[in-house]
Amino acid sequence: MISDKMMSFVKTSSVIRAMFEEGKRLAKIYGKENVYDFSLGNPSVEPPAQITKALISILNEEEPGNIHGYMNNSGYEDVREKIALSINHNFGTNFRAANIIMTVGAAGGLNVILKSLLNPGDEVITFAPYFGEYRNYVSNYDGVLVTISPNAKDFQPNLNEFEEKISSNTKAVIINSPNNPTGVVYSEETIKRIAEILNKKEQEYNKSIYLISDEPYRELVYDNAEVPYLTKYYKNTIIGYSFSKSLSLPGERIGYLVIPDETDDYENLISAANVATRILGFVNAPSLIQRAVARCLDVKVDVEVYNRNRELLYSSLLSYGYECVKPQGAFYLFVKALEQDDKKFAEAAKKHNILIVPGSSFGYPGYVRIAYCVDYSMIERSLPGFKKLADEYK
Amino acid sequence: MISDKMMSFVKTSSVIRAMFEEGKRLAKIYGKENVYDFSLGNPSVEPPAQITKALISILNEEEPGNIHGYMNNSGYEDVREKIALSINHNFGTNFRAANIIMTVGAAGGLNVILKSLLNPGDEVITFAPYFGEYRNYVSNYDGVLVTISPNAKDFQPNLNEFEEKISSNTKAVIINSPNNPTGVVYSEETIKRIAEILNKKEQEYNKSIYLISDEPYRELVYDNAEVPYLTKYYKNTIIGYSFSKSLSLPGERIGYLVIPDETDDYENLISAANVATRILGFVNAPSLIQRAVARCLDVKVDVEVYNRNRELLYSSLLSYGYECVKPQGAFYLFVKALEQDDKKFAEAAKKHNILIVPGSSFGYPGYVRIAYCVDYSMIERSLPGFKKLADEYK
Repeated sequence: MISDKMMSFVKTSSVIRAMFEEGKRLAKIYGKENVYDFSLGNPSVEPPAQITKALISILNEEEPGNIHGYMNNSGYEDVREKIALSINHNFGTNFRAANIIMTVGAAGGLNVILKSLLNPGDEVITFAPYFGEYRNYVSNYDGVLVTISPNAKDFQPNLNEFEEKISSNTKAVIINSPNNPTGVVYSEETIKRIAEILNKKEQEYNKSIYLISDEPYRELVYDNAEVPYLTKYYKNTIIGYSFSKSLSLPGERIGYLVIPDETDDYENLISAANVATRILGFVNAPSLIQRAVARCLDVKVDVEVYNRNRELLYSSLLSYGYECVKPQGAFYLFVKALEQDDKKFAEAAKKHNILIVPGSSFGYPGYVRIAYCVDYSMIERSLPGFKKLADEYK
Repeated sequence: MISDKMMSFVKTSSVIRAMFEEGKRLAKIYGKENVYDFSLGNPSVEPPAQITKALISILNEEEPGNIHGYMNNSGYEDVREKIALSINHNFGTNFRAANIIMTVGAAGGLNVILKSLLNPGDEVITFAPYFGEYRNYVSNYDGVLVTISPNAKDFQPNLNEFEEKISSNTKAVIINSPNNPTGVVYSEETIKRIAEILNKKEQEYNKSIYLISDEPYRELVYDNAEVPYLTKYYKNTIIGYSFSKSLSLPGERIGYLVIPDETDDYENLISAANVATRILGFVNAPSLIQRAVARCLDVKVDVEVYNRNRELLYSSLLSYGYECVKPQGAFYLFVKALEQDDKKFAEAAKKHNILIVPGSSFGYPGYVRIAYCVDYSMIERSLPGFKKLADEYK
């Protein structure tokens, strides 16, 4: 009775549910503290105290009608203004409130911009491994996801293949740096090359190609890694940002799109993004939390907590013989599976009560994703299991 | 450069923006207090104090990770449980948490259920006049909106035409009572007849037809009007509820779907609604406000404020010679335009600084919608203008 398109999703989602149920089953048998769940990207660091403080003072100080009412579909004007100024201050850009659209998280933002841009059959390019939802978001608007195979040496994008796969059907490119699942940060050199290729192809096909930068992990970087601000490198760039990880607020669904003045067809694009926000049923990003994040634009979670996790897990896994590119951002390790079939390898890990996600879920088999946004002590407890698992393959 | 489908929306939305700008222009010339904006359905009654209190105590008492983190795509289990019990208590139903999916307002809920149900070309029936967004929501999933012309005597639905227009392509029916824009509440008799017709047609075509009840105005009723709970009358009923009006929280985007056990294909439907919540980019309804509404399920705004507005505006307009069915719910009057062209009539009203929406926007020309969710004193100040406007047509 349900939609044909949704039927296939329902089948997949029951596989995921089965995995989740399996975790609960293991916890029952072995005790919760002896099951090591590295499968979810749910921030483990508490939201900064400033967020709670901001929410309470807004509730105490402001008129309820001003904090829970409808506003423009783009969000509160003053919130958007503050965000624009904060970006300008941090990155030397020149945005105004009119360039910002508040969104229901980055996922909401991506849906809004893809709905605004895509005609059926339009191609959207992304680089494997990639966040699996991109395929669904593009498919929502009958677009076609085209993937570029990775350079497994350092997981910087394979730019030769990128250049070859851009066609007259290419409408947009999604990049995600710091990357889920690899944790890799794209270098400025890489960004410059991507911009160069896109400029050339825009001319060649005489059309606009939009670069959509999905940036939920922008603030989670280590070793002083720099994450270039893409609007400065390529004109037709749209940024999708989220406060889910920077402030540990994933449940609140709050983020924004940046659509610069200089994007082709700017006026229509902004209008379309407003309308898409409305008709997709978001209507507007949740109101109270808009006001709260606007008071916390200089705040972020304690990244050092994730960094300690990263160092412990990375160095331990390497010493056991695993192969992995050391991530400079996000909270994931993308580790080479010790057998060809990543799903079988994830099953083998489960025998040690270790839950990890096969790389196939990110469009790149042969690897597994380990989310280290967990308690440090859980990582410690899990290490003997990771060692035994490696030893089994020796 | 933007999507073809969106281009037509952008054109329409610039008309609406022009209207909004016109309001601002008039306010500049005549002073804000001399412009009477009846165009928006933005609740004028303050949210109940209990909501602010609930939000603050949750923020003070609970772990931040538990109020801002990810949860199941359906929403917090305990929140859904409380909502199910509250519905059971009020309407004698028998729901569990598993029947409730928390949504980003009613608009989010309708998108989720339509995405779950529709194949391209599937027909969705609704009764004119109707909330204009239904057309867009159905079109998002390539469905076809089929409208039933109204019975203008009392704006109860025209059931003969309804019966005729159900076809083998009908997948769903959307009803909205109390109704936007008429304020009419469908009688139990009407609901029983609708159920009867749908049961007959389900048998005739040997397929499921889902009745989607869009209920943002359920709590806003006057004269002790009863709003039947539809799951009790027809098996394949899905409820879309919102707290936007009952608690004056439209900016917070919080509501829920009820999908009863007895709906055909229940398991798949629930799964599909979960997946749709995820892949449309909602991911989950905003988290903190989920917890807050769960503490305020027995609270509602002071409906008497709207009732006073209704009585004043309705009796005044009638005394000036306007024709209107007295609404029993919501906060709208649907008034017969004094000339055939409702758009011209709305223009004529603007000359008296009165802003109202042509019925064409609700799929029913010849009428205008007057939203009385405004200050009582603004209604008082507007009355001479309404009188002059009527006199012009005498």
